[in-house]
Amino acid sequence: MCEVLIIGTVALDTIETPFGKVEKVLGGSVIYASFAASLFVRPALLSIIGKDFPHEYLALIKKRGINIEGLEIGDKTFHWEGFYEYDMGEAKTKKTELNSLEYFNVQVPEKFKDTKYVFLANIDPIKQLETVKQMNKPGFIVLDTMNFWIKHKRKALIEVIKKVDTLLLNDAEARQLFATANLVKAANAALRLGPRAIIVKKGEHGALLFTRRNHFSAPGYPLENIKDPTGCGDSFGGAFVGYLAKTKDLSEKNLRKAIIYGSVVASHNAQDFGLTRLQSIMTSDIRKRYKEFQEMRKF
Amino acid sequence: MCEVLIIGTVALDTIETPFGKVEKVLGGSVIYASFAASLFVRPALLSIIGKDFPHEYLALIKKRGINIEGLEIGDKTFHWEGFYEYDMGEAKTKKTELNSLEYFNVQVPEKFKDTKYVFLANIDPIKQLETVKQMNKPGFIVLDTMNFWIKHKRKALIEVIKKVDTLLLNDAEARQLFATANLVKAANAALRLGPRAIIVKKGEHGALLFTRRNHFSAPGYPLENIKDPTGCGDSFGGAFVGYLAKTKDLSEKNLRKAIIYGSVVASHNAQDFGLTRLQSIMTSDIRKRYKEFQEMRKF
Repeated sequence: MCEVLIIGTVALDTIETPFGKVEKVLGGSVIYASFAASLFVRPALLSIIGKDFPHEYLALIKKRGINIEGLEIGDKTFHWEGFYEYDMGEAKTKKTELNSLEYFNVQVPEKFKDTKYVFLANIDPIKQLETVKQMNKPGFIVLDTMNFWIKHKRKALIEVIKKVDTLLLNDAEARQLFATANLVKAANAALRLGPRAIIVKKGEHGALLFTRRNHFSAPGYPLENIKDPTGCGDSFGGAFVGYLAKTKDLSEKNLRKAIIYGSVVASHNAQDFGLTRLQSIMTSDIRKRYKEFQEMRKF
Repeated sequence: MCEVLIIGTVALDTIETPFGKVEKVLGGSVIYASFAASLFVRPALLSIIGKDFPHEYLALIKKRGINIEGLEIGDKTFHWEGFYEYDMGEAKTKKTELNSLEYFNVQVPEKFKDTKYVFLANIDPIKQLETVKQMNKPGFIVLDTMNFWIKHKRKALIEVIKKVDTLLLNDAEARQLFATANLVKAANAALRLGPRAIIVKKGEHGALLFTRRNHFSAPGYPLENIKDPTGCGDSFGGAFVGYLAKTKDLSEKNLRKAIIYGSVVASHNAQDFGLTRLQSIMTSDIRKRYKEFQEMRKF
């Protein structure tokens, strides 16, 4: 057992933004998510890399206290190349080489099958479903996805949504998945599929939480200098589930707090390239910005 | 003197949304703004109409306790025709007939020149500047504008901004006016021009307040059924200044409350066509939704 089990991609990312470019840096949904979760608990990851995966990146992951017993080694590491334009709103993909991800065969290590908190970070929904099937009744499953899967594996994605407690998606994805411009309608449609909570991530505009009875609106953190938004959604999710696993409290009140922690960590993540910021932030940075979020919404 | 003096346009609006169409209904920035302000105080308006202006509309305005001594009568009333697409995000203009607005010569009635609270609602910035010049040191001036003036009368608009206490604009306008995708940078640039507060209206995403020392993030109200967003920005501004004039408290804390009241009234406004909702809401509706806003952001 571990505190949080996270499945997702490990990638070598080449990212260009108006503020610079980095090549083949450590990335992928499970990396951002587990680095973020590791600010609160000791997570374990489930993914696949290739033989080309740099040893120093592996050392970096281990150093964060992230368990890698579920990390398979295939042929070649997944590679993503993308860029952001001036408004930094949306990642544009230049190249996607799935490589070893194509034949990734999910196998949850026996010792992790009783893990209470599971985060299905962004990856093929068929692999997310496979993970859920192998678990022994987890207490709380959080699901993230992306536009690509909504378009190409909608049916499998709907199947996973039916099995999770919380669905994370961004506003454009919510509109796309439920074919409505109205986020409230989209969230209500998602709730009808089964999850008890829907979290709509809106980037600079914050995040919304919809439950059957209430809604909560978390502000965005006003950043003057966003350098690289890559991994913001993943680190939001990782911090969200990490905080919940740490506090072991699934009340709506605590879900709201977890969303703010998710926003705090994601906003830090955007302030530098790749994982740079997530590697260096301290508990005190998180606490400080959490307080700023509190001040920012008092009236 | 009156409690709030508001300058802006009176229009006959033809509006089409995916939910219906209305023809030549009462509208214009000063109308939405003063109807919203009249929920808190007794405002006076400054504008021009034509001889074609329906008597029942005039009766409607008077019935709200809005002073019309500053309402000139010209030839033909300003007419706007526009529509909204499925996402209801942005008004698309089909037709604009300025008519009497073209030769509107601002003349603030003597008795209103000492008014403490002034709202320069959306209209040609040259007319806004003219209004400010005629006032005897108002205590608090709020300015609203739109993309058209940013594009065509930028210089005059900058002049007005330098003379006001609070600048309201929507996110796209903030980005356009200060040539940056980043709202924090845009707001800081606006603050450097003089106003002590910048309010960025973001529609469904709420509103942001920037002062030299702080920022505040007001949530959007999650509406499942938006029928017609026309006048939301104007009614936000009208309620904002109306609440401030009523409470006579210009502390940042109270500005934040005023923004929530602005959001409450604007969200009601979007729920029906034209002024339908603003004509019928009661103080109890406003109080109820204000409380919902409070609940929506607790963590």
